[in-house]
Amino acid sequence: MSGYALPIKRLIKAFSGLPGIGEKTAARLAAHILRDSEASKEEARELAESILAVKAKIRYCSVCFNFAEGELCDICADSTRSRETICVVEDPDSLNALEESLKECGGYHGGYHVLHGALAPLEDMGPERLKIRELLERIEGHPVKEVIIATNPSVAGDTTALLISKLLKERGITVTRIAMGIPVGGDLKYTDRMTLAKCIEFRRGV
Amino acid sequence: MSGYALPIKRLIKAFSGLPGIGEKTAARLAAHILRDSEASKEEARELAESILAVKAKIRYCSVCFNFAEGELCDICADSTRSRETICVVEDPDSLNALEESLKECGGYHGGYHVLHGALAPLEDMGPERLKIRELLERIEGHPVKEVIIATNPSVAGDTTALLISKLLKERGITVTRIAMGIPVGGDLKYTDRMTLAKCIEFRRGV
Repeated sequence: MSGYALPIKRLIKAFSGLPGIGEKTAARLAAHILRDSEASKEEARELAESILAVKAKIRYCSVCFNFAEGELCDICADSTRSRETICVVEDPDSLNALEESLKECGGYHGGYHVLHGALAPLEDMGPERLKIRELLERIEGHPVKEVIIATNPSVAGDTTALLISKLLKERGITVTRIAMGIPVGGDLKYTDRMTLAKCIEFRRGV
Repeated sequence: MSGYALPIKRLIKAFSGLPGIGEKTAARLAAHILRDSEASKEEARELAESILAVKAKIRYCSVCFNFAEGELCDICADSTRSRETICVVEDPDSLNALEESLKECGGYHGGYHVLHGALAPLEDMGPERLKIRELLERIEGHPVKEVIIATNPSVAGDTTALLISKLLKERGITVTRIAMGIPVGGDLKYTDRMTLAKCIEFRRGV
C-alpha cells in the first residue's frame, strides 16, 4: 500500500483496525469510499457521522447494561415488562437475537442482563471484567423469581453459566439454563456427539 | 436488528452499504465500534475522520487519473520518470500493485493512465465512462514511444485492451499488452486451458 497517497493509507489503516478486515479488504473498502460521485460523497459522510453519533449517544443501560440512548434501554424503560425474570446474555447481539425471535414466537416479557463477555481466563477475561457483580447487586435490590442463563453453549459460556448459577443459588434464586439440543430442521445423523448428548440430557416429558 | 437503538441501526445500515459487508458483518463492526473503552473512542474518531479526510483531500490526478492529493499524483509529479512510456491500467489498485512489484524487481520508470474500469456493456460501462478520451488527448499533447496495456486478463479487460490498441495504432503509436501465462511457482498440470494457450502464444526466444 506504499504507493497510495497519505490520506488513503490512513483510511486503509483505520479500516484494517476493524475485526475481520485485513489489509486487502480495507483497501477495497477505501476504494469504495473513494469512488467519484455525489452519492459516494453522501454515503461517506453518513458513515463517518454515524460512527461519531454512535460513540457520542450510545452508552450502557444503568440496569441491564444493554446499549441505551439514555439512562435506560428500551426494554428496562418499558413498564409493561416483568421485573421478575432476568435473562442473562453474553452481549447485546444475543439479547437482540433472543428478543426478535421471541417477539415472533409468543414473546418473552421479562428483562435482560448483559455480561459483556464470558469467562476466558487465557484471554484475561476474569469474572471482574463481566457485569456479574452488577447482576448480584441488581437482584439484591429487586428480588426476582427466576434467572435464565442464556450464555452461549461453548466452553466459555458454560463456565460463565456455572459460576453465575452458583452465585445465584447461594442467594436462594431459581436459575435455569437455555436448552441445548438439535436445532429445528436439523438432522440427527449430521449432528455432532456433544449436541446429541445434550439433546438427551435436556429431554422432557411429552 | 429492530431491537437496537436508533444510532446503532443507522451505523449498521451505513456499514452495510460497503461492498462485501452484509448485515451480520455490519452488526459485528458496529459492536466493535461500540466497545466501551478510551482506545475504542480514539479508534472510532480516527476512522470517521479518515473517511472525511479522504473525501475532502483526494481527487484524480489531472494527467493520469490516479488518486492524488494535489493537482498531480506522486508519479506524475516525479520529474525523474520517463514520459515516453504509459502503462494503462483499469484502476488505482492495479497501478499500486504494479508499482510495488516493479520497485522490488528492477523498476518501471514510465507513467501510468488509469481508466477507472473496463468495458462491460451489460453493466452499462461503455467507452465514454472510461478515461479513454483523456488518454488520447494526453498522447496528442505529448507523443509517447510505447503504451503498455495492463488491463486485467478477463473478457472486459481484453475487450478494453482491443479497443484502446485499435485507437492508438490508428495514431501510429506502438502498443504492447502484458503477458498472460503460467504464474511464477505455478504448475502446468493444474493450469486452466486458456492460460496454457496463452503461455504458448506469449512464448519468446531464449
